[in-house]
Amino acid sequence: MSLRTLLLTAAAGLALATQALAFEPLTIIDQGSFSAGGTVTTQPGTFDNRSPMDIAGQTFHGDHAYASYQVPEAPRSLPLLLWHGAFQSGKSWETTADGREGFQTLMLRHHFPVYIIDQPRRGRAGNSAVAAEVSPMAFDQLYFDLFRIGQWPAYFDGVQFDASEETLDEFMRSVTPNTGAFDPEVVSDGVSALVDRIGPSILITHSQAGGPGWLTAIKNPGVRAVISYEPGSGFVFPESDLPDPMSGAAGTLEPVAISDADFDKLTQIPILVYYGDNIPEEPTNLFGLDNWRTRLAMARLWVDAINARGGDATLVHLPEVGVTGNTHFIFSDLNNGQIAEMAATWIEEKGLGDPAQ
Amino acid sequence: MSLRTLLLTAAAGLALATQALAFEPLTIIDQGSFSAGGTVTTQPGTFDNRSPMDIAGQTFHGDHAYASYQVPEAPRSLPLLLWHGAFQSGKSWETTADGREGFQTLMLRHHFPVYIIDQPRRGRAGNSAVAAEVSPMAFDQLYFDLFRIGQWPAYFDGVQFDASEETLDEFMRSVTPNTGAFDPEVVSDGVSALVDRIGPSILITHSQAGGPGWLTAIKNPGVRAVISYEPGSGFVFPESDLPDPMSGAAGTLEPVAISDADFDKLTQIPILVYYGDNIPEEPTNLFGLDNWRTRLAMARLWVDAINARGGDATLVHLPEVGVTGNTHFIFSDLNNGQIAEMAATWIEEKGLGDPAQ
Repeated sequence: MSLRTLLLTAAAGLALATQALAFEPLTIIDQGSFSAGGTVTTQPGTFDNRSPMDIAGQTFHGDHAYASYQVPEAPRSLPLLLWHGAFQSGKSWETTADGREGFQTLMLRHHFPVYIIDQPRRGRAGNSAVAAEVSPMAFDQLYFDLFRIGQWPAYFDGVQFDASEETLDEFMRSVTPNTGAFDPEVVSDGVSALVDRIGPSILITHSQAGGPGWLTAIKNPGVRAVISYEPGSGFVFPESDLPDPMSGAAGTLEPVAISDADFDKLTQIPILVYYGDNIPEEPTNLFGLDNWRTRLAMARLWVDAINARGGDATLVHLPEVGVTGNTHFIFSDLNNGQIAEMAATWIEEKGLGDPAQ
Repeated sequence: MSLRTLLLTAAAGLALATQALAFEPLTIIDQGSFSAGGTVTTQPGTFDNRSPMDIAGQTFHGDHAYASYQVPEAPRSLPLLLWHGAFQSGKSWETTADGREGFQTLMLRHHFPVYIIDQPRRGRAGNSAVAAEVSPMAFDQLYFDLFRIGQWPAYFDGVQFDASEETLDEFMRSVTPNTGAFDPEVVSDGVSALVDRIGPSILITHSQAGGPGWLTAIKNPGVRAVISYEPGSGFVFPESDLPDPMSGAAGTLEPVAISDADFDKLTQIPILVYYGDNIPEEPTNLFGLDNWRTRLAMARLWVDAINARGGDATLVHLPEVGVTGNTHFIFSDLNNGQIAEMAATWIEEKGLGDPAQ
């Protein structure tokens, strides 16, 4: 271990210790977890208590969503549902990789009830109704690039991500695989069932959950607003007015056609989309960066399409409002206190931040 | 839906609503989550930022454990580490399937800091260093029998498990698969790394975690006591004094040989083992019941072996002390308040329940 690494590690340890000391007590008036949605399938035949390793006549519960929740004292009326991205679980929203308070706890301090989702076929909701081969995928450097921490092995100057080895190790251990094929319909059905159970809610999506988040809002009028951090795919457009696909070094990003009637449902709720820093405006052959050039461009078209039909969508490209250095994990970056504050303020501005009666 | 089912479902719903109203506020002085342990592997070759979908030169972080935690006000000095069984995740310890407070919250109310584990290759710690085929397994009726809720489709008389359809559905959705082969060494290494990070702790294991729990206590002197709810396999014995295997309708249960020196480490800490109700003393051809006849018998030999070498192990077969109807999930059964109280009292009796300084 180099002296620099040793010092950085010691500093990170000190930061962790300080953080632990600094935790301001939280009063929780309810907490727990539950599943929602999913399917039940039954095998043909007759179950025999003497041979229960034989599946004959047995059932299987799968494809449900899981949520754990906490309600703080003096809660607001609309809870937040935090929905992770690809290769992630609810852990995304908990303690940050460098040991600070995660978005979960920050938003509890803003008096929101907070629900953390593991989507169907991921994490604690791993009982998939379809089989999958799970293989270790050596993609840490892909993630480093794609999540715009830097361009491996270099961190971006001014990036909002602690550059210690300990932090990167913890960050990489938030990765967890699909236990069944990712299916936007299955995961949005699961989260819609959560909304049925929880009641009117504000959906907060990250990355891969962006597209299924729009589908959930279309399926369920209980979704009263959506904040999406760097939606990465599943940009839904009215079939009558599809934009062209966008190509680049990371492949081709296709718009997803839905009915005009479904699209119009997205014009009925306020929507806020955030993108972070270090996204090029011009094409580059660096996969991890060019990937976001096309996505940011598509998101701009998407927001314009919502607003052209009378909706209320806003895209905030953070560097354009003076907030710099954010990675793809905006909500857990070093400035996540400011990011949480921005989200809470927007919710209040939209008239959705009232205290519970 | 029959009238009886309808009434039971309505009653369960009412119980849930009452429960939600009745939640006594909790003051939390710290909470969060983190990973510990695990491995890092590196692919041969050189990483290219222009081709990051190629694994050349990339690393993989896997086989770590995950824990989420809460510290209540006026905490005791030794935290509890709650370790799930087979086909389960940390969800085991959260809200019960019928919507009551889980062991997690009950033990927070007893002023223990509580850590909930997802073991390596399970749940949110799903990034396995070995590949696995994950297939939907229609085993609900096996679980119903094996977890001694009853003998499908009949519930045991007086069973400590709510008999509504809603509860059984939620219970079955706590099932989640391995994302890599179950390996007692890998999971005990992961949990031992958690103990290194957390400090001296009391380990509470369920079912499949029983055996790896003993291994963790052998590996790590930070484990100051173990409470094991229905350990199901991995009964370790000194190689110099192995009991005979035990056979029955559920197969043959083999003792696991370890060195005498390792076994002696288990004599240095207090150990408490619980088994619930409806375990036959005589052989039966019912798989789900006979499975526990041999396990209870082996556990009795195991406790005797610990004590014969000067240790402090206790086996409590709950019906023998007048606590009846418990399933394999003792800690989430209808009487889990009493079960939590019994655990807290034992910890105090062993002098391990002191307040933190």
